[in-house]
Amino acid sequence: MTYRAPVDDIVFTLLHNAGLQTAIDSGQFPDMDAETVAAVLEEAGKFAADVIAPLNVAGDRIGAKFDGGTVKTAPGFKDAYTSWAAAGWNGIAATPDFGGQGLPIAVNAACIEMWNSASMAFSLNPLLTGGAIEALTAHGAPELKDLYLAKMISGEWTGTMQLTEPQAGSDVGALRTRAERQPDGTYRITGQKIFITYGEHDLTDNIIHFVLARLTDAPPGNRGVSLFLVPKFIPNADGTPGKRNDVRCHSIEHKLGVHGSPTCTMVLGDEGGATGWLIGEENRGLNCMFTMMNNARLAVGLQGVGIAERATQGAFAYARDRKQGRAPGAKESSPIIDHPDVRRMLLTMRAMTRAARAICYQTAVSLDGAHHGKDDAARKAANERASLLTPVAKAFATDIGTEVASLGVQVHGGMGFIEETGAAQHYRDARINQIYEGTNGIQSIDLVTRKLPLSGGETVRGYIAELRAVVAKVKEINDPAFGATATRLGDAVESLSRATEWLLKELGSGAGEAALAGATPYLRLFGTAAGGCALADEALTALRLEGGDASGRVTLARFFAENVAVLAGGLETTVTEAADSVAQLHDAA
Amino acid sequence: MTYRAPVDDIVFTLLHNAGLQTAIDSGQFPDMDAETVAAVLEEAGKFAADVIAPLNVAGDRIGAKFDGGTVKTAPGFKDAYTSWAAAGWNGIAATPDFGGQGLPIAVNAACIEMWNSASMAFSLNPLLTGGAIEALTAHGAPELKDLYLAKMISGEWTGTMQLTEPQAGSDVGALRTRAERQPDGTYRITGQKIFITYGEHDLTDNIIHFVLARLTDAPPGNRGVSLFLVPKFIPNADGTPGKRNDVRCHSIEHKLGVHGSPTCTMVLGDEGGATGWLIGEENRGLNCMFTMMNNARLAVGLQGVGIAERATQGAFAYARDRKQGRAPGAKESSPIIDHPDVRRMLLTMRAMTRAARAICYQTAVSLDGAHHGKDDAARKAANERASLLTPVAKAFATDIGTEVASLGVQVHGGMGFIEETGAAQHYRDARINQIYEGTNGIQSIDLVTRKLPLSGGETVRGYIAELRAVVAKVKEINDPAFGATATRLGDAVESLSRATEWLLKELGSGAGEAALAGATPYLRLFGTAAGGCALADEALTALRLEGGDASGRVTLARFFAENVAVLAGGLETTVTEAADSVAQLHDAA
Repeated sequence: MTYRAPVDDIVFTLLHNAGLQTAIDSGQFPDMDAETVAAVLEEAGKFAADVIAPLNVAGDRIGAKFDGGTVKTAPGFKDAYTSWAAAGWNGIAATPDFGGQGLPIAVNAACIEMWNSASMAFSLNPLLTGGAIEALTAHGAPELKDLYLAKMISGEWTGTMQLTEPQAGSDVGALRTRAERQPDGTYRITGQKIFITYGEHDLTDNIIHFVLARLTDAPPGNRGVSLFLVPKFIPNADGTPGKRNDVRCHSIEHKLGVHGSPTCTMVLGDEGGATGWLIGEENRGLNCMFTMMNNARLAVGLQGVGIAERATQGAFAYARDRKQGRAPGAKESSPIIDHPDVRRMLLTMRAMTRAARAICYQTAVSLDGAHHGKDDAARKAANERASLLTPVAKAFATDIGTEVASLGVQVHGGMGFIEETGAAQHYRDARINQIYEGTNGIQSIDLVTRKLPLSGGETVRGYIAELRAVVAKVKEINDPAFGATATRLGDAVESLSRATEWLLKELGSGAGEAALAGATPYLRLFGTAAGGCALADEALTALRLEGGDASGRVTLARFFAENVAVLAGGLETTVTEAADSVAQLHDAA
Repeated sequence: MTYRAPVDDIVFTLLHNAGLQTAIDSGQFPDMDAETVAAVLEEAGKFAADVIAPLNVAGDRIGAKFDGGTVKTAPGFKDAYTSWAAAGWNGIAATPDFGGQGLPIAVNAACIEMWNSASMAFSLNPLLTGGAIEALTAHGAPELKDLYLAKMISGEWTGTMQLTEPQAGSDVGALRTRAERQPDGTYRITGQKIFITYGEHDLTDNIIHFVLARLTDAPPGNRGVSLFLVPKFIPNADGTPGKRNDVRCHSIEHKLGVHGSPTCTMVLGDEGGATGWLIGEENRGLNCMFTMMNNARLAVGLQGVGIAERATQGAFAYARDRKQGRAPGAKESSPIIDHPDVRRMLLTMRAMTRAARAICYQTAVSLDGAHHGKDDAARKAANERASLLTPVAKAFATDIGTEVASLGVQVHGGMGFIEETGAAQHYRDARINQIYEGTNGIQSIDLVTRKLPLSGGETVRGYIAELRAVVAKVKEINDPAFGATATRLGDAVESLSRATEWLLKELGSGAGEAALAGATPYLRLFGTAAGGCALADEALTALRLEGGDASGRVTLARFFAENVAVLAGGLETTVTEAADSVAQLHDAA
């Protein structure tokens, strides 16, 4: 049940596979070097393990409680949050103009992974606040920034993102919450929102809601949606919380997992209307949301990695400790880690987790490059790389999160089904990651229909070329420890390439339905090829560097190639040949 | 949340794919015909849907409560159990000598599926009682049968199977519960058992425990284990419950799912020792357990099918009802069932469920054949077929149960994570099926090391030959509606064949570790080829028969072949080439 932050692994992946070292070397972060990165992450890891991780059980068993309009968070959450914010962790990637530390997004990404390994329920609050900070930073009027941003970056106030309504989930444009212009330039907001994470809580004095609503004269659909800042308490000019705004928590949900994170139904306008301030332009609210979407989706992917890492650690610990039966060649009862079938599960867990981590960190480094790249061309390329990888990071890593958590239950045997063990909590908590912040189906469709066509397909082709280069290096090094890695991984990359070209052609011919039908297996194929190559790349690097755990990394890369990447061919066939079989559902409905 | 028993589908699979019609035609069941089968299942389906299914939510939310030694079952469980037993459902496959109805195991299997679709927590009690009945029928002394069997078959008393101890899970032979011979021929039993399903409850006046224990002078390990009957109340000579025996429930577990089923820690001998009666011979207790293991494992596989069916029905209902976004070509908001990615999920759910069902029913019909085949050769062949398929039925169907339940959550989107929807309960409940009654890893090892070698490999080769025959028929019929079914399924069957031969050779050469390392992907490959061929076989039959839902069945068979069976090649490679990669875990540990 304990958590040890795998800081060495995290730093290794960040610097060497994801490209943070290269970014540092290229001058993207003048104040940053590898040692600073490691030092920051070491501290974050300690905080996550020592302060947050112990909250995870109470967060689950006691959870957040709704009590007549207020929400009481689980024991320990408030103290931990206060000291976490006081230590400056909330603002490490935020702008120094308002008290942030301006560290790379990639460093924050590694922190987000660790916070979420420690407790997803605790970490959802800053995750949402981060999105709100980003929207306000990019689109807020100067006077709104002055009033809110420093307090949100310090963590003194938290933020929410209020999109969903009962009839508007994946289809945000169907929302009905209304906004009316007021003579003083504010807006009167009325409506109901559901599934609002930390919409109400007792951790801070104020909560700044970011609410999507529709002006009374707005056009229908996505182009009639505006974004508003709606504080729980309207700040006085001196920044202290003032008048209570007309936005209230009506109830919280009884959920499968993350019980420590209150999921609120919010009512705006029970007493006539909440006062809101426009963010960005009228009817351009979705554009404001899109700004923060890459980061938010990446953050959810990192939740998948975080939970997978925690579940893996738990399974390894149990498998080393639990004795049962005799492993091949053993003379007496063996720890179950010695049984080949358990080894397969453990290796799958670790390899999948590392693969998902690498993809997420690559996305983060690309997001940094999109801001700090040396010139327009570099920034554009990095931005497109980030755009391409974001849906993979979100969906692949969260699928892996659930799969790894499920394997964690299995490794524990009967104990895995007993809640006190903790494995079951991971299995429950992980499940939401595949759903929120755009379901994984939506991510797959985004990848296929919006991301593959970037720069006429050259963005994805460029990425695949890098995967091919990794395969070529594995082949070249010709080290028998890699087993069939080069062949299996090479096949996977070529499957990805062919499936990509097929999809680009389908999209080009306007035959969208076939592309949509294959979107989910395509994303899995993408993650499989990318993840396998990331592990192989790390193994190659480790062979070059001292202290890089070369034999362990080669083993994982080989395991992934021979046991996971081998499914790529089947996935390719599904993408390119199975669309008709999906279209005929009505016959089987 | 409602459940409609899919009786037509169940009857179709039972008669036409699993072979019950052939068994009836061959005279295995003189009193049975297709109409009777359908009539019995129609009634069972009504009972499951009308009486049991409504209990499922209270079973989960209120659950079984422990109260100082007794267990109170959830509201409605006692009335439902009483009327279920009164209707004779508990004894439909049991021997008529003691009041059973002697119906085919296959018919009971279909009922078990439906009881478990309705409520896994409710149905676990009869599932365990069924195992106890079987052990007593096969191995009990006549006076024990006379005293207990009729009451257990009627359901007036229930049974438990007490194997597990803290240090003895998968490794049953490590158990320590002690049995001492008493001068009166009984045994004094002392020890502690964990994870005992329905070890205590308020549904019946008596509970008959079947306890594995070790005689004081027994040899160590599996060969020193004996089976004892330990009643909660020692019956008087007239059959009324008499003196309270020294076996008590100490506590119940807080579990991930099946909250309505009390999972008890049982203490035997707190007041000096429980009185037990030997079943079978001393030190041969595991053999008695093995007798019932095929049925019990099949029953757990059927739980997987049951939960998958219920989850699938829920997902289809939601996807038809929920409107969100526009499907390709739609002018306004579409039910999400029209979106290709949702269709893929729904088709996967239905195809996987049907495939798992067919494998389970094939196993059941083989078990019937093992008892009622026309001659020794037929019985032996059926017995080996049942032995071969049992681990596949158990592990493949329960893996599918969890996967389908997880897809069910996903189809519901954000609502899937909210407990009131019901999808999350399936996801939680399903998870235990992969663990108990022999983990799925144990099943895979059983399949590879004990079942493949049956009759020198001819048992499995005979089954594969039947799969090949299905592929040949699909090819022969040459109907374009089947798409690439023949090719994809043919490839899957040949992958299975090659992997099988490779494993047989490995086992023959004594290189067990490599075979163990590939056991889990091999079982998946087996289930994939077998399940795909079952769907294709059903489609072919439906094309021949009127009212067989031919287009729906062809669609499902094609979907499975083109989207699931295509992974067979990768699984084959993993089985035959990846053992080394598993052996090297220590490098990555």
